[in-house]
Amino acid sequence: MSKIFTVPETAQWLAENDNFLILTHRRPDGDTLGCSSALAQGLREQGKTAFLLQNPEVTPRYMKFVKDYFAPDSFVPDYIIAVDTASVGLFPENAAKYTDSVSLCIDHHSSNTLYADFTCLNADRASCGEIIYDILTEMKCPVSSISAERLYVALSTDTGCFSFGNTTANTLHVASLMVEAGAPNRELNKLLFRTKSHGRIAIEGKLTAGIEYSFDDKVAIASVTKQMMESSGADEDDMDDIAALPSSIEGVCIGITIREMKSPHDCKISVRTRAPYNAQYICSQFGGGGHKLAAGAMISNTIPEIKEMLVEVLQNALSQG
Amino acid sequence: MSKIFTVPETAQWLAENDNFLILTHRRPDGDTLGCSSALAQGLREQGKTAFLLQNPEVTPRYMKFVKDYFAPDSFVPDYIIAVDTASVGLFPENAAKYTDSVSLCIDHHSSNTLYADFTCLNADRASCGEIIYDILTEMKCPVSSISAERLYVALSTDTGCFSFGNTTANTLHVASLMVEAGAPNRELNKLLFRTKSHGRIAIEGKLTAGIEYSFDDKVAIASVTKQMMESSGADEDDMDDIAALPSSIEGVCIGITIREMKSPHDCKISVRTRAPYNAQYICSQFGGGGHKLAAGAMISNTIPEIKEMLVEVLQNALSQG
Repeated sequence: MSKIFTVPETAQWLAENDNFLILTHRRPDGDTLGCSSALAQGLREQGKTAFLLQNPEVTPRYMKFVKDYFAPDSFVPDYIIAVDTASVGLFPENAAKYTDSVSLCIDHHSSNTLYADFTCLNADRASCGEIIYDILTEMKCPVSSISAERLYVALSTDTGCFSFGNTTANTLHVASLMVEAGAPNRELNKLLFRTKSHGRIAIEGKLTAGIEYSFDDKVAIASVTKQMMESSGADEDDMDDIAALPSSIEGVCIGITIREMKSPHDCKISVRTRAPYNAQYICSQFGGGGHKLAAGAMISNTIPEIKEMLVEVLQNALSQG
Repeated sequence: MSKIFTVPETAQWLAENDNFLILTHRRPDGDTLGCSSALAQGLREQGKTAFLLQNPEVTPRYMKFVKDYFAPDSFVPDYIIAVDTASVGLFPENAAKYTDSVSLCIDHHSSNTLYADFTCLNADRASCGEIIYDILTEMKCPVSSISAERLYVALSTDTGCFSFGNTTANTLHVASLMVEAGAPNRELNKLLFRTKSHGRIAIEGKLTAGIEYSFDDKVAIASVTKQMMESSGADEDDMDDIAALPSSIEGVCIGITIREMKSPHDCKISVRTRAPYNAQYICSQFGGGGHKLAAGAMISNTIPEIKEMLVEVLQNALSQG
């Protein structure tokens, strides 16, 4: 069983040890990559040896923040640290030989399975970056502009540039300190939030043009076919958070995105609702799950079939609201 | 000539006087409305009498933040205060009888014409809300949840939810204090940044579908006809910041939006560039103006004619880059 570490205990453990290899999670986002590189940088500034395990799924957008920290093949670590990773199943394949021996896990997911020897967990934090900041500060490690930049990436990407509902006063407070410490927020925001790929622009246009409203415009359904993806030149990266689009429309209480996966008979639905409407209920009718306001399901039917199947389920969901 | 007031001088002047009428600017945004209502609230909490002058252009989105502060017809003020308003020409018509006698102006525009007796100006602030916060704090007026909500509206709307290039460490710092003081940032962000009207969704879809790329995709041109506006059901409110769309596309250095105004021979172009490309140069060729990275012009030609006229200008603009 894992021992829960406070921030001071975590800082002390890091101060007393050396030769760290830091693991990130699959489909790495700004939080896991920002946290791991900021922690490595902070530890190095304390005279420690710290590297990141190569993560084969790092996208071009994030590569520059982590590329200088990847471990050479020759590196033999004494301790394994995981950041922002709730369970062993979320590590990339190349981490397999380390996942049974993670010494320290630093995380903000309440679903953390406590797989590490020591776990520093704070589920009230919007981003794991806020916890890394607490730890570096506790270690009396002044946040340099290099780690500040990486922590800003962590904080801002996990909160949609401070617009998501998880953003707290602490998130904004730490972000202000990171900008003060030299994080170039203007350039980072432009890169991370104010730039859309050609594929994203094109798929958003097609998706938007085809949105169907029903139930007095309380429901908006968007469809994404494989053909739409191909003609837009959109890839998986471009689909990030696209399910939020139909639910962002004024007056819409239930937003649904139906997306063709491998074949037209293999679709994924993503449901976003406004309280009190229950996304989980809708998706559970198709064997899926999730949270109350955001859920998903895989369905082996075509888009038109799924739309028909949805009518009754939506009627029930709306009457429960 | 106006006397420049420091924050302590402003706080002292407010403390020594009473019966204030606060003016906001035309086409009122979240900053002028958030600042004026937060200031009125703060002054009232100090036992002062403070009202806002009715502003006929307040949109439904912002009405709830200001409606409780509008002056009754019977109110006779002793002092006129203006917030976030750089010049007398920017007041709404119903302010005409007050604009020659503004006692105090609180502003963050470097273009302020110093029309008031006393001017508290800080052009380093992204939002005027940051200055109002400084003044209320200096007055030893603890920011209540009511004024915190309004100052959060001011801060967040002037910075695109902290994503624009004007956002500073101070903006984020004050925002964190406002959330701490009770500003419901989750609900406010949903209302202000994560909700799109049907008209906006529709016009974005049409605009996006018609974007034309040229000069090796360095230039993106979007057109908005009156017919597109009508069929989308989009109004003026829905066009807010839409010119940022073509320039947000990956690799695009010059983004241009051409919009038909009253007649097809009456168009407005909005140009957004990435440094070093000069938006001002492009618009000056058509008699317009603006800033280096954002400029505009009115042109008495049709959209196809303007596109042709742009070719040579764009060639020059790109060669200067």
